[in-house]
Amino acid sequence: MSTTTTFLGLGAMGSALAKACLDAGRPTVVWNRTPHRAHELGERGATVATTVQDAATAGGVVVSCLFDHRSVHDVLDPVADLLTGRTVINLTTTTPHEARELAGWADERGISYLDGAIMAVPEMIGGPGAAILYSGSATVFDRYRTLLDLWGESHYYGSDAGLASLHDMAMLTGMYTMFAGFMHGAAMIAAEGGSIRSFAERAAPFLAAMTEGLADLATTIEARDYDGEGQQSLKFTETALAALLRASVDAGVNVEVLKPVHDIVRRQIAAGYGKQGTARIFEELRSPQARRPRSTG
Amino acid sequence: MSTTTTFLGLGAMGSALAKACLDAGRPTVVWNRTPHRAHELGERGATVATTVQDAATAGGVVVSCLFDHRSVHDVLDPVADLLTGRTVINLTTTTPHEARELAGWADERGISYLDGAIMAVPEMIGGPGAAILYSGSATVFDRYRTLLDLWGESHYYGSDAGLASLHDMAMLTGMYTMFAGFMHGAAMIAAEGGSIRSFAERAAPFLAAMTEGLADLATTIEARDYDGEGQQSLKFTETALAALLRASVDAGVNVEVLKPVHDIVRRQIAAGYGKQGTARIFEELRSPQARRPRSTG
Repeated sequence: MSTTTTFLGLGAMGSALAKACLDAGRPTVVWNRTPHRAHELGERGATVATTVQDAATAGGVVVSCLFDHRSVHDVLDPVADLLTGRTVINLTTTTPHEARELAGWADERGISYLDGAIMAVPEMIGGPGAAILYSGSATVFDRYRTLLDLWGESHYYGSDAGLASLHDMAMLTGMYTMFAGFMHGAAMIAAEGGSIRSFAERAAPFLAAMTEGLADLATTIEARDYDGEGQQSLKFTETALAALLRASVDAGVNVEVLKPVHDIVRRQIAAGYGKQGTARIFEELRSPQARRPRSTG
Repeated sequence: MSTTTTFLGLGAMGSALAKACLDAGRPTVVWNRTPHRAHELGERGATVATTVQDAATAGGVVVSCLFDHRSVHDVLDPVADLLTGRTVINLTTTTPHEARELAGWADERGISYLDGAIMAVPEMIGGPGAAILYSGSATVFDRYRTLLDLWGESHYYGSDAGLASLHDMAMLTGMYTMFAGFMHGAAMIAAEGGSIRSFAERAAPFLAAMTEGLADLATTIEARDYDGEGQQSLKFTETALAALLRASVDAGVNVEVLKPVHDIVRRQIAAGYGKQGTARIFEELRSPQARRPRSTG
């Protein structure tokens, strides 16, 4: 019989994780601060724990999927003694710094800790396209691989517990900015009375196709080689962005999402880099610590 | 024998368009303000026109692909008389307003005008994935369809010459913000000494998968129904964005691209919409003219 899995936190995501576990016929314990969602899962075969203490003593591996870093401490701190010698897989969204703090907290208490960052919406859990990034204990990752693979593709990033969150957040930044940019586009279409749904039908495959250029962008950035062949110049990009902003203002659309991209490009041009590639935007975003001289080879 | 096609402007894009024409064995005339690129195409079989007047009298259809709206006038105004009764397909990047201005200019001079917006980088022209949006004269679109289809998929948006540019710019806004967000993510990875190329390998398919959600987002926005099932709440998004910003600041990364998205979400929450869907970002971007009361059905 598989190890019991105890879920702490049954928001949309926690519930989806627990359901995947139940669907696989595994013994499942669930707890939530407000009991409504726990009862739903109880009807599907989960054991409902009414207190965190009950949940923590139910045995097996503990999976936490809570609101934020603070709520992980709020829930786990009071039962830390009960978890010594046990395993916690934390799938709550946290920053890399917060994940490392939790890994340290767990280590001091003799708790094996694996941090996970979920690259999916709840509806995707257990289906194609869902992926979860992990970092922290490699032993936990290997031991519970069957459980983890129920939820989506499992990717291990290393023993530094902050790495999963780091990669997750770096990707989510692209996602949220893309969504915001899409909604800016939708606002332009709406201003002219066009159909936003028709717009999305063309925009979705276009943006998906454009992601194919990210590998080249990454190579350029990693080499700091903004003079290479085939790069779209900052000057060209500036002209395009200026046109987008002009068209947006013509249409009465709020440009606060797009304008900073133009501002960055203009600063790079003012600094004398107009003929270099647009990937130089990176130079305005990266931390001073990450700066190193441009390759002169 | 096919109609002669005369290209005005041989930047990377204009050259790619002319090459596709030459590769198809069609009679091709090329002109550029600086002659270097014209000579390259001349070696591939194009007739090189040394003046715009020569190009304009070469007959056939004129395809302009210049720097911006102003440069279209700079090039075409002096030869307008030579173009009366002829056809101009303008593929220069312009705003919808500028495209309409050019259509009006052409109409007054008895020139048939089709405006095109290219959804591709020059390397993609003539290959899979390239698309060009058109609006303006339907007669021109139908008559020159064989020519247009040499470059990519051809999509006609209607007789209002501004529509192709409008849809193009709305999509490009999503692209540039996605690229900027990706580079923000790359800056987070770089700050921790991670590999940007490895990051891109995961980020590209993730972002491509996320575009599948845009159709639902469009449906939500079009219905102004931010209370529907399965929407990620603004409150949830605010927590996620706050974590991304915190992690970015921890890493010393410049947050000017991401912060406006968070600002918008916070304004919507302050206005009392925290439990509604994140698609409400649209309400902060759209023009006052596009505002209409929320559906109360």
